[in-house]
This record gives sequence, C-alpha cells and structure tokens, in this order.
Amino acid sequence: MRDTPYLAVDVDLLESNLARMAAHARHLGVALRPHAKTHKSPELARRQLAHGAVGLTVATVGEAEIFAAHGIDDLFIAYPIWAVGPRAERLRSLASRIRLRVGVDSLDGLGMLLASRAAVALSIEVDSGHRRSGVAPNAAAALARAALDAGLEVDGVFTYPGHSYAPERQTSAATDEQWALAVARDGMLEQGIPCPVVSGGSTPSAEHVVPGVLTELRPGVYPLLDAQQWELGTTEPERIALTVHATVISVRGSRVIVDAGNKVLGADRLAFATGFGRLPGHREARIVALSEHHATIEFPPGATVPALGDRLHLAPNHVCSAVNLADTLVAVHHDGREEEWAVAARGANT
Amino acid sequence: MRDTPYLAVDVDLLESNLARMAAHARHLGVALRPHAKTHKSPELARRQLAHGAVGLTVATVGEAEIFAAHGIDDLFIAYPIWAVGPRAERLRSLASRIRLRVGVDSLDGLGMLLASRAAVALSIEVDSGHRRSGVAPNAAAALARAALDAGLEVDGVFTYPGHSYAPERQTSAATDEQWALAVARDGMLEQGIPCPVVSGGSTPSAEHVVPGVLTELRPGVYPLLDAQQWELGTTEPERIALTVHATVISVRGSRVIVDAGNKVLGADRLAFATGFGRLPGHREARIVALSEHHATIEFPPGATVPALGDRLHLAPNHVCSAVNLADTLVAVHHDGREEEWAVAARGANT
Repeated sequence: MRDTPYLAVDVDLLESNLARMAAHARHLGVALRPHAKTHKSPELARRQLAHGAVGLTVATVGEAEIFAAHGIDDLFIAYPIWAVGPRAERLRSLASRIRLRVGVDSLDGLGMLLASRAAVALSIEVDSGHRRSGVAPNAAAALARAALDAGLEVDGVFTYPGHSYAPERQTSAATDEQWALAVARDGMLEQGIPCPVVSGGSTPSAEHVVPGVLTELRPGVYPLLDAQQWELGTTEPERIALTVHATVISVRGSRVIVDAGNKVLGADRLAFATGFGRLPGHREARIVALSEHHATIEFPPGATVPALGDRLHLAPNHVCSAVNLADTLVAVHHDGREEEWAVAARGANT
Repeated sequence: MRDTPYLAVDVDLLESNLARMAAHARHLGVALRPHAKTHKSPELARRQLAHGAVGLTVATVGEAEIFAAHGIDDLFIAYPIWAVGPRAERLRSLASRIRLRVGVDSLDGLGMLLASRAAVALSIEVDSGHRRSGVAPNAAAALARAALDAGLEVDGVFTYPGHSYAPERQTSAATDEQWALAVARDGMLEQGIPCPVVSGGSTPSAEHVVPGVLTELRPGVYPLLDAQQWELGTTEPERIALTVHATVISVRGSRVIVDAGNKVLGADRLAFATGFGRLPGHREARIVALSEHHATIEFPPGATVPALGDRLHLAPNHVCSAVNLADTLVAVHHDGREEEWAVAARGANT
C-alpha cells in the first residue's frame, strides 16, 4: 500500500486517449505535435511519438532542454521567447543539437532571436481570440517579412485558441482559430512568403477542427484529461486517465475531508467549474473547499458517504497544474502492476 | 543576469518580518512554533529558530522527515495523521529520532496512532469556526481521555482559525480561536487532564490574539507575506519579502504580459482577491488573467506602462503555493549579493 496522496495514471485509458487523438489527426490529415507541458514526462512523450507524433511542443527553453536530454530531437517552443541573458546562450546550444522551432510575436523579440544566433525556425504567433500574446492575423506577414529580411528562417504561423476553455465555446473557438490562421497564412502567401506549417491547438477545440487550414495540431491535455475537460463536455469522466488517490481523514455528516489539497490538485478553478476538481466515481459529489492538504467533499442527500480511511480518486480541475506539483506519476497497468514515471520537466519554467 | 521567472527573497525584509513576529510572541508570553509549510526551507527554519522559535510546525510526515534530516529536532505535525501503511512505520522511525507531536481528531485516528507504536505526543484538533477538520471544543476532553486510557501522551489542544482569510474577519477569527481553545482546555482540566499546550495559529489572526489563552502560536506566512495578506490588511506591500521576478514579453496598450504564470505564482484566488497576485511596485496595476506561463497585467489610465523586456516583481496571492512550485529561493542581500536557498521540502505531501 502506497501512502496517499499520489497521482495515478491508468495506462489503458492513457493508451486509448493517445490512440484516439492520433486517429483524429490522421483523419484531418495534419501532423500531431502534442504539448508536453501537460505531462512533462519522457515516458509519456515516448508513447506519443509511438502513436505517430512528429515531435513535441513545449512552453519554455527549460522544458525543451529536458526533453532534448531524453532524446526528443524535434521540438517547438510555442511561446514568444525573450532571448536575453543566459537564455540566449541556452537557446543557441539547444538549437545546435536538435531541430528547434520557436514562437515570436514582436520585432523586439525577433531582434533578440537574431542576436542570439540560435539556429531556430520561427513561427509567427497569431492571436485568434484568446487576447493574450500574438499579433493580429493580418500583421503576421509583416513580421515574417522582417524575419526573412534579417536572414532568419520562418516556417509558418501558430495560435492557441485558449478561449475554447468556456462552456459552449469549443466550436466557435475552433472556427476563430482556423480563420485567424488562414488570414495570417494568406497574408504571407500574397507576399510570396512560404507558410508550410499552420499550427493550432488545444484539447477542447481539437475535435471541432475540420480539414483544410491547419497542417499541425498541438493539444496538450488529451492523454490524461481532467475535471475541466469533463465539465466542458470534451470528455466523459470514464476517459480521465489521471486521478489523485487520497484518503478520507475526517467525516462530518455528508461532508468528508481527504488528505489531498491544492498542493497536490492545484488551485485552478475557472468560472464554469462546479468545484475544485471532481470525482469520476462519485459524480454527484462536489469538492466544495480546498486548502493546502485538505479537500472537503460534499455528498448529496441519500448518497452513501465514504468512511474514514477509504481511498477516493479525484480528478484535478487542470491536470497540467497537478502534474507540475509532482515528482512522479504512478502508472497503473491493467494487471495492477505499478511503475513510477518521472515528471522530469517539472518546474522547468525558464 | 538570471533568467526569469524566479522567486526572490529580500533578506532584510525577511529578517524584519521574523523579528516582528518573534517580538509579538514575546509580548503575548507564548511560544512561537512557525509553520514551515510556507517556506519548506532549512535556511529559513534556521533563521526562525535563531529568532527564538521553540520548534517548527509542519503539515505532513514527509515535511517532518525532511526538516528532521536538516537537524530540526522538535516538530509538530498539525494535521490529523492517518497512520496506516508505510506512513505508520515512517512515523515510528521519525519519533525515535526527534521530539514529535501530532494532531488527532477522531477515535479511528487515535487507534491507528496507538497501533503504530510511534512515540509521539498528541494534540487534540479543535474546530474554531473554519469548518474543516477538528472536533467540537466540548468534545476534546473525551478524545483526550480515550488517548490517555490507551496509554498515549496528550500535551494539549490546537486549532487553525482559517476563517481569518476573509475581509474584516481577523479579529473575530482570533476571538473564535481563543474561545474554542479555552473551552477545550477547560473541558480537559475539569476532568483532571493536564493541558499544557494551547496552540493557535494563522498570520492574519496572530496580531489580534491577546494574552491569556494561547501558550503557542503557529503562523506560517509572516516571514515572506503575499498579496492575500496585503489585501486582508495584515501587511503593507512594503513588507512583502518574496516576489516573483518576471520579464515583460508582450505589450498591448495598457496591458502587458510577463513570463510568469500559474506554474510559478500558483493559481490561488480567494473570493476577496482583486487579481491573481499584486505588484508592490505598481499598486494600481492588476493581474487580470493568468495562464501557465503568462500573467496579463492591466495598468490604469495615465499610468506609465512597462516596456518590453522590463523586469517586474509580482507578489503571489498565496506564497505557500508559489514556494511549493520552486526548487530554490533566490535570497537577495542588501549589498546585492545573491544566494540560492533550497526548497528542500517542496512536494513532500505524504
């Protein structure tokens, strides 16, 4: 018996989720380049490549360094890299060892990438409605032109339709994404700038993408899934592959407290969430309060309330946050055999 | 120049915060047993002991093991320990090496502590209004009696007035805390059960405790402080000793994006918070959106908006969460010298 709390991955569910997204990408005729920020795990990366992924996406130079050290030789840092100080040298060193693409969304960013002399391909970040980083779609060509004029390599455009994380917004976010990328791509083509890679992403929007615009898909959460995806309707609870195993340490009427708090589950709670995570095995229960080492779970009238010492399985709201709090994932095979997978890129934020 | 994002600690502010709480405990005539879950750092623990702390509080057996390995020999695990499986053996081993007190709030928990044969002192956890774990104040004596009858050592009662984390609730939470502890203590004394240690805690309530009931204080956040304490009125922003150093990577009108997201700041946001953290150096600015590696900061009309590449200092909403995401704290001395302090107990959740 393993001391709780810990993060458990159902390997059969994981494999089924990996196969499903790989089939979707094949159906769309696009390359799959999963975002590894979700799992930060070389073992999971290996399985994604075995399912046909062309490479991985990461968020930071630090994540890229770690996956490169584990043998992944084709990475996209989907972030407007600010290549100053030690980071510039780290980027140049990394780009000398693997095939590396990085994001850019400003002339200043471009200037630093140029100054870093890192042998990277650039992808212009476009804002498709999330209102975070990225240039307007019709401004991509000018930035690409500036990059080419400076002697840099540009291989396309990318966006992150993060506004897919709201109820009933998955289809429209996918439409926004494809429209913004098409405008950006066409702007480049009109100026005679090739745009071979048109890259979109996000697990909630992925199923709503249609063949045509995208050449590459970058979903992150799909192998493991979480309570947010359940509540958005992206998944049924039965497909959630990662849960926190926790022990009931206090019972008071219809409320129980388990020994997993926000230092295990993460504190993420988007506006639409009905609690601080969910229990796939107890669908009517809600996690109504969360502190560092306590989750308070309310059961509805008439439900059988777990007893002191029972072990419950909690799906975090946001699996990327939960994984980033752990050093290992406990992979559970269908014969009950367990092995530990290192979260090798945990905390690699720079 | 260090790559951002990273957690920086202003050592002068830290020392001033440590001295201030130590003076308050001396004024109250109580022992100070700071909660080390906030910093998870042996160096900070050492400084707390140097300021007169009698020992430390921790939340898990794992944290206790790590601080014990760093030479701290008097620890209180202020949590209703569920001593089954490997944890029972770990607890017994730990209690053979250091002076150890643990929490209990149920007969079942008591039974397991008894079965573990760990040489620990017990403290009965009392609910003072936070409605989490803990028995009702008038039920403490019965649990203490059961423990004594089983041959266990009981050294007192404790509570955590977590409902102090709400606007204008600090004084009333401190009153609730002292009342609940007094009821629990008096119940024990009436049955002839000694109650030498009456232990309360929480940074927001600590200043509102008056001499009389408590014999021990367990605040956690006070050495570093954070945006929550600022917005609760527990501190002025000038006293916040830990900030995340981040770089502006995107500017759009009055909004800038920095390269620190919830994987650095944590995602905590209580109902009263005005954003996902605050900027002590830009009091009118608000962190209006937070994703894994982006914080979007809105500046008010007329304010000077930072430029691309500028470095900003962000106070996390909840410093305990931010520290638990980092491997090191960058301690900055007043002469500018920097050193790295290990967050040795990061992730020690079991």
